[in-house]
Amino acid sequence: MAKKKIGIIGATGYTGSELVRILTNHPDIEITMITSESRVGELFSDVHPFLQGIADQKLVSINQIDDYELDLVFLALPHGVSMDFVKRFKHKPFKIIDLSGDFRLNSKEVYEEWYKLNHIFPEGIEKAVFGSPELFFDKIKDANLIANPGCFPTSAILGLAPLLKANLIEEDNIIVDSKTGVTGAGIKAKTVNLYSNVNDNFKAYGLKYHRHTIEMQGVLDKVSEKETCIQFTPHLLPVDRGILTTIYVRPTGKMDEIKLKELYADFYANAPFVRLRKQEPAIKDVRGTNYCDLYVTYDKRTNMVIVISVIDNLIKGAAGQAVQNMNIMFNLEETKGLNLIPLNP
Amino acid sequence: MAKKKIGIIGATGYTGSELVRILTNHPDIEITMITSESRVGELFSDVHPFLQGIADQKLVSINQIDDYELDLVFLALPHGVSMDFVKRFKHKPFKIIDLSGDFRLNSKEVYEEWYKLNHIFPEGIEKAVFGSPELFFDKIKDANLIANPGCFPTSAILGLAPLLKANLIEEDNIIVDSKTGVTGAGIKAKTVNLYSNVNDNFKAYGLKYHRHTIEMQGVLDKVSEKETCIQFTPHLLPVDRGILTTIYVRPTGKMDEIKLKELYADFYANAPFVRLRKQEPAIKDVRGTNYCDLYVTYDKRTNMVIVISVIDNLIKGAAGQAVQNMNIMFNLEETKGLNLIPLNP
Amino acid sequence: MAKKKIGIIGATGYTGSELVRILTNHPDIEITMITSESRVGELFSDVHPFLQGIADQKLVSINQIDDYELDLVFLALPHGVSMDFVKRFKHKPFKIIDLSGDFRLNSKEVYEEWYKLNHIFPEGIEKAVFGSPELFFDKIKDANLIANPGCFPTSAILGLAPLLKANLIEEDNIIVDSKTGVTGAGIKAKTVNLYSNVNDNFKAYGLKYHRHTIEMQGVLDKVSEKETCIQFTPHLLPVDRGILTTIYVRPTGKMDEIKLKELYADFYANAPFVRLRKQEPAIKDVRGTNYCDLYVTYDKRTNMVIVISVIDNLIKGAAGQAVQNMNIMFNLEETKGLNLIPLNP
Amino acid sequence: MAKKKIGIIGATGYTGSELVRILTNHPDIEITMITSESRVGELFSDVHPFLQGIADQKLVSINQIDDYELDLVFLALPHGVSMDFVKRFKHKPFKIIDLSGDFRLNSKEVYEEWYKLNHIFPEGIEKAVFGSPELFFDKIKDANLIANPGCFPTSAILGLAPLLKANLIEEDNIIVDSKTGVTGAGIKAKTVNLYSNVNDNFKAYGLKYHRHTIEMQGVLDKVSEKETCIQFTPHLLPVDRGILTTIYVRPTGKMDEIKLKELYADFYANAPFVRLRKQEPAIKDVRGTNYCDLYVTYDKRTNMVIVISVIDNLIKGAAGQAVQNMNIMFNLEETKGLNLIPLNP
Repeated sequence: MAKKKIGIIGATGYTGSELVRILTNHPDIEITMITSESRVGELFSDVHPFLQGIADQKLVSINQIDDYELDLVFLALPHGVSMDFVKRFKHKPFKIIDLSGDFRLNSKEVYEEWYKLNHIFPEGIEKAVFGSPELFFDKIKDANLIANPGCFPTSAILGLAPLLKANLIEEDNIIVDSKTGVTGAGIKAKTVNLYSNVNDNFKAYGLKYHRHTIEMQGVLDKVSEKETCIQFTPHLLPVDRGILTTIYVRPTGKMDEIKLKELYADFYANAPFVRLRKQEPAIKDVRGTNYCDLYVTYDKRTNMVIVISVIDNLIKGAAGQAVQNMNIMFNLEETKGLNLIPLNP
Repeated sequence: MAKKKIGIIGATGYTGSELVRILTNHPDIEITMITSESRVGELFSDVHPFLQGIADQKLVSINQIDDYELDLVFLALPHGVSMDFVKRFKHKPFKIIDLSGDFRLNSKEVYEEWYKLNHIFPEGIEKAVFGSPELFFDKIKDANLIANPGCFPTSAILGLAPLLKANLIEEDNIIVDSKTGVTGAGIKAKTVNLYSNVNDNFKAYGLKYHRHTIEMQGVLDKVSEKETCIQFTPHLLPVDRGILTTIYVRPTGKMDEIKLKELYADFYANAPFVRLRKQEPAIKDVRGTNYCDLYVTYDKRTNMVIVISVIDNLIKGAAGQAVQNMNIMFNLEETKGLNLIPLNP
Repeated sequence: MAKKKIGIIGATGYTGSELVRILTNHPDIEITMITSESRVGELFSDVHPFLQGIADQKLVSINQIDDYELDLVFLALPHGVSMDFVKRFKHKPFKIIDLSGDFRLNSKEVYEEWYKLNHIFPEGIEKAVFGSPELFFDKIKDANLIANPGCFPTSAILGLAPLLKANLIEEDNIIVDSKTGVTGAGIKAKTVNLYSNVNDNFKAYGLKYHRHTIEMQGVLDKVSEKETCIQFTPHLLPVDRGILTTIYVRPTGKMDEIKLKELYADFYANAPFVRLRKQEPAIKDVRGTNYCDLYVTYDKRTNMVIVISVIDNLIKGAAGQAVQNMNIMFNLEETKGLNLIPLNP
Repeated sequence: MAKKKIGIIGATGYTGSELVRILTNHPDIEITMITSESRVGELFSDVHPFLQGIADQKLVSINQIDDYELDLVFLALPHGVSMDFVKRFKHKPFKIIDLSGDFRLNSKEVYEEWYKLNHIFPEGIEKAVFGSPELFFDKIKDANLIANPGCFPTSAILGLAPLLKANLIEEDNIIVDSKTGVTGAGIKAKTVNLYSNVNDNFKAYGLKYHRHTIEMQGVLDKVSEKETCIQFTPHLLPVDRGILTTIYVRPTGKMDEIKLKELYADFYANAPFVRLRKQEPAIKDVRGTNYCDLYVTYDKRTNMVIVISVIDNLIKGAAGQAVQNMNIMFNLEETKGLNLIPLNP
């Protein structure tokens, strides 16, 4: 089979470098084009020096896109910028996987409320498939535009879907307490991400209004066929990568530990990247991989279910899940190029 | 006034070294005796070399205690060991501040259920005052035996007391999601505390059964005069010291942001170590100090109150609160020797 | 005695916040004025929120300086800016301690070569006393302008002075391999200081051309009365604060371990902030304090002397040493307000 | 070609887990046997839970070795234990790559002096080939017993070999200042490796007497055909993995930057894992990979050459270099299974 030709739009951020890191060893594709408007003409490894000798592609402009035959492009662009691209190239033959938030929500209105931005391409919202392979495999197979899930939503949705699908918990009483590594905030030099502000430190942020709240609710509304209500609080960990989400939910009926474990085992029986762990997983257990590690338990004393969900925010929470979606869209084995083993320690 | 004579029982752990660090600069006391059964005859600074030239006291055995006149002793001993000491020296004239968990719970039965140990001195449980100055100042003043609060309970109790005292929340529906630095686990070389297991990592532990759960509930039952039920989950942060606790509670009646802030301002009007913060506090904001920083907010969308509570686990969560209690017991200014300023960064 | 009135010029950086942290508990001074041109009218604790309730002074402009009676001002300004201030206020009655590099070198020419800047006030270079109390106590006593030493030079100079003063090593064959925490680079949001670039990472920088090289050489030329030549390489540690400097020098004559230790003990017999350590010191052993910990040893096999020197770059390497200089200038006890105990862990 | 059958002797340490991590994705071998005397019968992923679902091999005893046909075994054992194994199985048909220090030195006498242990199998010292592929490729090809290099020596030897081979520096005046991550000290729970002792900290250790000194000298004596003398000082970094070595040497003749760079480019022209970097490399630039990144520069002012050498101590400094050696011994492409890309950040 001829190798699929891939474009990566946006080279300077972590999403771009992770895509390249993963795709470089993927046997069935070739990276045909990498763009960066600010660094045209430089090498990819000039932007990411640790890739010297590994990924020395010359960076080009989006405007040169017609020079390339492409089967699929990944958009590693900020939200608000992605939609421009999707609109501009809507008639192109390539498929698109957008890693921004522009096409993840359920309507133009909801987007504009939570992102405080005009949405210039609502048609894309209609067409886009939410790229969560464990939930929407069949739709992804046939999609031309994937809205690749956000990092926090990935951890929360995979943690909650079995319970909500089976209608076993109060859907309007969900607490999602997340802790993320600092790469979730991107590569830009912001005071909040300075070493001295993050190291040996920890804090909550974005209380009550974080955009990923509505993304989680939107997807879980569909899974549960009910209107969910989620209290979502992100916290900033002194680690580079990784999200651990602790979820608290209230069963509506009788619950026990065995039933709970079986529910998850059944739900994820065919999901190669979901590991149901015997003990509480740590974020380093999935570092550098596409795994989502889950641990569920029932507290009889309090009548609560606790779910712990762990991912690498840059991989299962971004670039890795995007490649997983690409594999599905190309009818490749879902795990191709994703045989990544945790770097631990 | 003659300086008060202080003994520190147990020199090798972090609690011991923090007590010495704080008391060395306290103007009204002198450290008369420091014991360590395993290192008798060595200097305190042999055990803690960073204190060379600062705290070079010779370590003695508990058995030499009659050689000293003491006004007060701090027990920096593991739980299960403290009660032996308290029992053995119950007729001594000195006051005791116990930093272990042995006298914090409400009964011998509860202790034995949660600590899986016989309690050999239930009389002490009766007599002991829970050393939370913001709640029990008057009792502490007259106490001879203080059960110095646990680190997680300190953060949770100070975060919850105003709401429970005022009877404004569902008392049986409380979620306490805590994140702690590694010193909470003590100074011993355990695999779980190895650098490579903690660094760049994060995980939950002690789900459902952590002993601090019952300590929180026991104290808050008294504050609220109701039977509280708390879901408590601790997590291990890659930081040396600090606890951040995120609390989720449900108002029973109408709530708003202003009322909430006023409630806390009133409740802590005379508490020199509670800072009500305008923004979400970070753990480094209190590092090295006796502060408890609180931030409260109400989420109208979900009808929930979120409280964030931050302490230095070794100070407000242990040695600093103990010195605060000592000051109160000696009728000294509550803040004496505790004018510690956060080391940040 | 009336409290001395102190001004701090430049509030936003780490040097400013450390000065305030130290001076707040100093018994003989009062902070009369803190300036910040960019944040006039705000509180000091708005700039450094961890100081809420501790240091809530209102920030003013340098232009308001005539509204205050001042005994001494600290300049916590960038190099290149300090000299403007010193020149502008040269006729003012207050003493000046400048924490920048503007007056540390031996001549205008040397400054301009290494700093790539015009020096607009060479008169200040003549007048300024290099503020290393262990070497120049008497001159500091009478100085009106102190050039407070750089962080790397402090660690290197204190490590080398005894050997060079005694003329026991090859003065033109000195290797100074330093490792510093990230606060040495200041508080600004620069890519190089982002958490993800520093955490779990380590690298050398500024090879061959770091400005502190010439500062070390200039001072040690005076100490040794010879022309020293130093190979200085700084490295960036994933820690907030602290410098450890490893020094390699070649004895000119016969050397042994005992002679070496005695040399240092004699040289620093009256230096309250130099601790000669029995074992290799670690940077956390001095964290938050004004100590310089030294360890010296002789390697018979290779005929080399190794010196390890450790400081807190923000304290002995900046604000603490500045306060030490202030004490000396005011005829106060050298250690006043500097009874800081290491925060460890 | 039939897959080669591999045994790994010693499963519990980092070397064992890294070997498994690398070999799991190696196309031409199969892991046939993993031993652990302390955990026989358990799964490899019970010992290293992050490998659940990835490496679930059952652990067996060394005593079962005759049940397996093996082409090669890796010894991931402590020094002092490896030699027992090598002696016991000297007549077995499989090749051995020993990752301990037991066969790295030049004689029984030198071993016993620096390791303070009897060497029970000096015959092995004669036979063993030092597994540095960049220096001894041809000998490795034909070897039956490989002494896999130590981590510090790997970084120092690759940094120094071109200069010593070309006879361009003073061979008896070499300073090797190394900084290592904590995994270099192994997986055991030792006080020195506790999070609170390593985090935000930094110190030198093993001054003058570290065993890797003599390993470096022994190999470089051969490379230079002279008697080298090295001052080696290791330091402990607050990072999991990675070594950065800063080397200072004195040219014997005229040196310049261009000549220096060419020398290294020529020397490593055929070395797929040595990257000559344009800027100073950082340890995260090679994290998770088999690269050794080198940067060399000449300081005209001081007449010194500085070399910076960076590796991942667990990979190029242990398991990765071992696999590289295995590939060479099996006549496979040197890079097989080692297409690892840096995990950064």
